[in-house]
Amino acid sequence: EKVNWEMPRLVAEECLYDGNYLHLHLKQAETPTGEKVNWEMVSRPPHGWNLSGTDLIATLKRQGEEYLLLVLEHRYPIRGYVVSFPGGIDEEGDGTKGALRELKEETGYTALPQDIVAVGPLVYVDPWKSNEKSKFVQVNVREDLPENQNPTQNLDPLEVIEALLVKKHCLLEELNKISQERNCGIDSRLYAFAMGIYLGQMAQETRP
Amino acid sequence: EKVNWEMPRLVAEECLYDGNYLHLHLKQAETPTGEKVNWEMVSRPPHGWNLSGTDLIATLKRQGEEYLLLVLEHRYPIRGYVVSFPGGIDEEGDGTKGALRELKEETGYTALPQDIVAVGPLVYVDPWKSNEKSKFVQVNVREDLPENQNPTQNLDPLEVIEALLVKKHCLLEELNKISQERNCGIDSRLYAFAMGIYLGQMAQETRP
Repeated sequence: EKVNWEMPRLVAEECLYDGNYLHLHLKQAETPTGEKVNWEMVSRPPHGWNLSGTDLIATLKRQGEEYLLLVLEHRYPIRGYVVSFPGGIDEEGDGTKGALRELKEETGYTALPQDIVAVGPLVYVDPWKSNEKSKFVQVNVREDLPENQNPTQNLDPLEVIEALLVKKHCLLEELNKISQERNCGIDSRLYAFAMGIYLGQMAQETRP
Repeated sequence: EKVNWEMPRLVAEECLYDGNYLHLHLKQAETPTGEKVNWEMVSRPPHGWNLSGTDLIATLKRQGEEYLLLVLEHRYPIRGYVVSFPGGIDEEGDGTKGALRELKEETGYTALPQDIVAVGPLVYVDPWKSNEKSKFVQVNVREDLPENQNPTQNLDPLEVIEALLVKKHCLLEELNKISQERNCGIDSRLYAFAMGIYLGQMAQETRP
């Protein structure tokens, strides 16, 4: 059954807490059927309200095998390490410059604008609790570029990030192995991507 | 280069704001090199601190075509609709009961415990800003079950959710179409999954 597409009406909005990096807000709304809703949500501070993120699906071919460039990073909220796509904030907002900068900073590898294969639409990370949004940028990293002869990260003093090269065709298996061997968590988007790869390959294999 | 696996030391923790659904905290830590870090983060309230989510990769076969059961739902933080996997909170914490309940509530379809194909590990949704975690549950929904002859959702009065059946083999294309036709956003995990399906199929097709 199709939903009633009338939007709930925003009645009031209140800032509950102004953090330096995160703001907590309360949205008061009224549904089309007249019910009152109080919804708490998180955002970046006002100057960053509209910033979006960039997440890199960065592949690299080596001796006929396709690898994905991933990062292992310490995350304070869970007090542990998590393996995820390289990424960060798309400061310029054009979808590509920030992506290539984050790739270099976090993995050490350089990609050129012409190595970008696709830039996805804005997608929502956790729309039940925040307005965080991000674009996936797919890029083919060429290891034979002069810039990639000795890849060197360019990290903030407070960042602790290790770059990983992981075989793409068995990504799901590899992630489970990394998680055990390195005692780290896995980012949910990366895990969803890996399940997709697995199921996409399976579907092709069993195609009539 | 391998990272220094010594963990930053937690020095203090402070609750900045006690919301009804979201809490804002400050973690003060010291890195192995002695640098001080102040990190803001969000969590559920204390009684829900350890709750995890459940996200369903629910497939259904109809006339030889495989479909994915998705949901289109209003989300207050972005004041719009988002298409995503069905899911919710895994209240029982066993990884399966909550998944099957959410599937029924949000899509109307019933699946039995034996229809569950896989339960993934805990994965992190946005580990830079919260401790939100979730498990993916893969389930094959059988349309010929007596319970599925007239699927009926079981929604909260405040929930506005439409169930969608989307072809799995062309999921990425279908998501972009739905986003345009329904003027809705796309959940980042669902988009990552769709990219994975696409790339997994491509890789098989171009395999030597």
